[in-house]
Amino acid sequence: MSSEQGRRGGRKARREERLATPNICLPALARNIPLYEVINQEGVELIHDASMKILEEVGIDFRDDEALDIWRRAGAKIDGQRVHIDRGLLLELVAKNPAEFTLHARNPERSVRIGGRNTVFVPSYGSPYVLDLNEERRYSTLKDLNDFHKLAYMSPALHLTGGIICEPVDIAVSKRHLHIAYSALSHSDKPFMGATTARERAEDTVAMAKLAFGDDFVENNTVMVSVCNCNSPLVWDATMLDAVKVYARHNQSVLLSPFVMAGASTPASSVGAVAQLNAEALAGVAFAQAVRPGAPMIYGQFLATVSMKSGAPMAGTPEISLMNFMVGQMARRYDLPWRSSGMVCGSKLTDAQAAYESSMTMQSVLLAGANYVFHAAGWLEAGLTAGFAKFVLDNEQMEMFYRFGQGVDFSDLDDAMAALREVGPGGHYLGTQHTQDHFETAFYMPELLDNNSYEQWAVEGAADANARGLAKAREMLGRYGDDAPDLDPAVDEALLAFIAQREAVLPDQVE
Amino acid sequence: MSSEQGRRGGRKARREERLATPNICLPALARNIPLYEVINQEGVELIHDASMKILEEVGIDFRDDEALDIWRRAGAKIDGQRVHIDRGLLLELVAKNPAEFTLHARNPERSVRIGGRNTVFVPSYGSPYVLDLNEERRYSTLKDLNDFHKLAYMSPALHLTGGIICEPVDIAVSKRHLHIAYSALSHSDKPFMGATTARERAEDTVAMAKLAFGDDFVENNTVMVSVCNCNSPLVWDATMLDAVKVYARHNQSVLLSPFVMAGASTPASSVGAVAQLNAEALAGVAFAQAVRPGAPMIYGQFLATVSMKSGAPMAGTPEISLMNFMVGQMARRYDLPWRSSGMVCGSKLTDAQAAYESSMTMQSVLLAGANYVFHAAGWLEAGLTAGFAKFVLDNEQMEMFYRFGQGVDFSDLDDAMAALREVGPGGHYLGTQHTQDHFETAFYMPELLDNNSYEQWAVEGAADANARGLAKAREMLGRYGDDAPDLDPAVDEALLAFIAQREAVLPDQVE
Repeated sequence: MSSEQGRRGGRKARREERLATPNICLPALARNIPLYEVINQEGVELIHDASMKILEEVGIDFRDDEALDIWRRAGAKIDGQRVHIDRGLLLELVAKNPAEFTLHARNPERSVRIGGRNTVFVPSYGSPYVLDLNEERRYSTLKDLNDFHKLAYMSPALHLTGGIICEPVDIAVSKRHLHIAYSALSHSDKPFMGATTARERAEDTVAMAKLAFGDDFVENNTVMVSVCNCNSPLVWDATMLDAVKVYARHNQSVLLSPFVMAGASTPASSVGAVAQLNAEALAGVAFAQAVRPGAPMIYGQFLATVSMKSGAPMAGTPEISLMNFMVGQMARRYDLPWRSSGMVCGSKLTDAQAAYESSMTMQSVLLAGANYVFHAAGWLEAGLTAGFAKFVLDNEQMEMFYRFGQGVDFSDLDDAMAALREVGPGGHYLGTQHTQDHFETAFYMPELLDNNSYEQWAVEGAADANARGLAKAREMLGRYGDDAPDLDPAVDEALLAFIAQREAVLPDQVE
Repeated sequence: MSSEQGRRGGRKARREERLATPNICLPALARNIPLYEVINQEGVELIHDASMKILEEVGIDFRDDEALDIWRRAGAKIDGQRVHIDRGLLLELVAKNPAEFTLHARNPERSVRIGGRNTVFVPSYGSPYVLDLNEERRYSTLKDLNDFHKLAYMSPALHLTGGIICEPVDIAVSKRHLHIAYSALSHSDKPFMGATTARERAEDTVAMAKLAFGDDFVENNTVMVSVCNCNSPLVWDATMLDAVKVYARHNQSVLLSPFVMAGASTPASSVGAVAQLNAEALAGVAFAQAVRPGAPMIYGQFLATVSMKSGAPMAGTPEISLMNFMVGQMARRYDLPWRSSGMVCGSKLTDAQAAYESSMTMQSVLLAGANYVFHAAGWLEAGLTAGFAKFVLDNEQMEMFYRFGQGVDFSDLDDAMAALREVGPGGHYLGTQHTQDHFETAFYMPELLDNNSYEQWAVEGAADANARGLAKAREMLGRYGDDAPDLDPAVDEALLAFIAQREAVLPDQVE
């Protein structure tokens, strides 16, 4: 007992010391840069009108009887599973969605605003494989997920812990959601993501959130975000709709995201693809508002373009950037918070391909004004693999994007001019008082990008970025214990008891 | 003789066949996307005013007697080597610079417009080292430079052949410029870059251009671009000014580029740095106009931020992007064509670092509206090394940036909507006529970014992007002979005779 307390006391002291210096979590980015709009208002209205025609004339399938009843009551025209939504009805429902809301974290200091000028960065999601600390690609386990949640907690530019960063395939499918939620809630105190693979799993996640946050708090506040994909083209299936219904009824947020393989699940046309995915996402938002008016939904999409030679999804292509800009403009037309995907790539490795693709996409997403930047760290191989090196390298990139998003500071111009007058032609600034005063803040200094001389870099082992990322991930996981967030032992006990109780009744096999 | 003719005939036939299909050179990009402006007009005027005060009150050194005479005659106030330039005089001179001009190539089909909505992509410049086809970093040779000029010629998104992509260190310094110009003129028919390391070398380059283009043509048209750096802070030295004078007098273009190590050679402030480099570049443009009114100069800069811990230059940082956007706004205030640097990085390898840094910078440069994107391929290690793998990977990225810059095409929306009505909810687009019609053009398909399945990628050797880049560079160099541009044998002979004549009188050693 006393050694435990001694250990914890020492841990606490070390943690307080550490937390006093570098931020463990930046606040949500309040963008202070202009939006980039790639099409004009006429273009926005052309796409809007096309999307409205899709929902009115072609219709969209909701493959769930309860959902069809909800649409029928709302006033849509139903034909089998096909729902035709008049633009008046659609826009009336969409207008009920809040333009901004607060996403609460277990630690109130980590709560963030979603929507408006705010942007949050969120880890990747859903990978069955990891590229692990030994550079082996293998099926992922619960331990890997724990480790990613620890890294997400320790990464200043990641605002959420995330959810299924990688699939814990060592846990039965029917029980995974319990361990995913527990891992996120116990290893981090940032906001988290919920399960959507079955109605009862969504309900379990809400129940666990209530244990962590309190019943009333969850019913009156938003404490998690989950992701529900539309099956493009134009199908919302029963599983996803079940999850939307559960979360909307509990006032929890859902990313209503067409999963777009542009060219395969959309027309081979960037504007055509945007018209379709806009219709799909809006139908999702409108449905959620029909379930519970005011539920805080997030409009958005996952975008890949498809190689029409091989059928493979592609990342980091110019059309993805163009579509991201257009999607942002559409979201703002409806005053909706919107998501996109940031550091996405097709590469199997943390190599130049991964970085070209991720960076190409991410800069567009930031300038497009995305509010919820999903897949901002760790994504490899079109999402099939979550990489540890990529995760920490991406986080540093996100710190830089964050800094970029803070924009230009003019307050220092007079002082800078005074320094210039002091130094004069042919002089040097490094020794001036102005430089010493602005040493820490003037220019971002990356830690994982090596800018030393070739000779020094060679002496230090000639490591590439991947190797430095792996070393950094190991180092962070090694000191996680010093930084770990507190979890009320009573809450911890309640969560574990809930998991045990649910595991006793859930089957190990699901069909 | 007959076998030579046979070989050439076969080569010609193969070349014509090849040139009939993929473009060997895209036209200059006529940007069809909006400009991104990170500061408002008030901010532009604040920086403008600060720059004017620098030139009026602090002054700028021109360390060359003839240059001081030129300034004196133009009406500037001279104090030793320090020139104080009143804003009225400065803006009057700057206004003489053309806002747009044509840069002529040896092959008229490869001529490009510089300025306005046009953007050209240009290889990297000045590296003493190469990272070669065997992944060895070593001093570069003339053969390496020949190879880079061949690759530049064969890279569709590179609009110029470039100049000293790498230094041919196996040639005496005094004679290098002759071989650099000959390599560029003989291995490619795109526009090229001239020498600026001494007055006589600039004169030799002009003489060689006259042999290739004709005397009158060169005097009346712009056929090359050279780069002259201001030594920040606020010094134009004699060597650079000599080159500016030669090229301006011959109506040839010069990049008047402060070489900025922000924080060391500028104040530790992004706006302060931009105010200074704006003053430096404008003073250079104004000087060139005082030499020859109407000479087609290009405003611009090389930007790095400096680690104030180690003094190392850094690439791909958020402040570089912010400064690029500001510099673009300043250039447009004066209606000047402007350069920036695209795919720049500090990495020693073609790894994730290289790509993160390059891509972060390049997207800003494109959206900032840079007209002359220098260092768009090959740059490594803060410019100390030119990499073959990086060169070809970067070219593919530039093809994607090119495509992005062409913007959004709405002409297809009606057809796309017809395809959507045909496919309907739950359908698939790959088989439709619309998709087949747009197969080739709808979505860019990279060749060097692998988007195949993990299994297929593994079977094919599990190559990373660097390895694929090396293989591609080898393949391109292997088939260069089939694609090589014609050079009039009389011109070739004249160039070689000129080189021999100059080599006979130039010393092998220079102090």
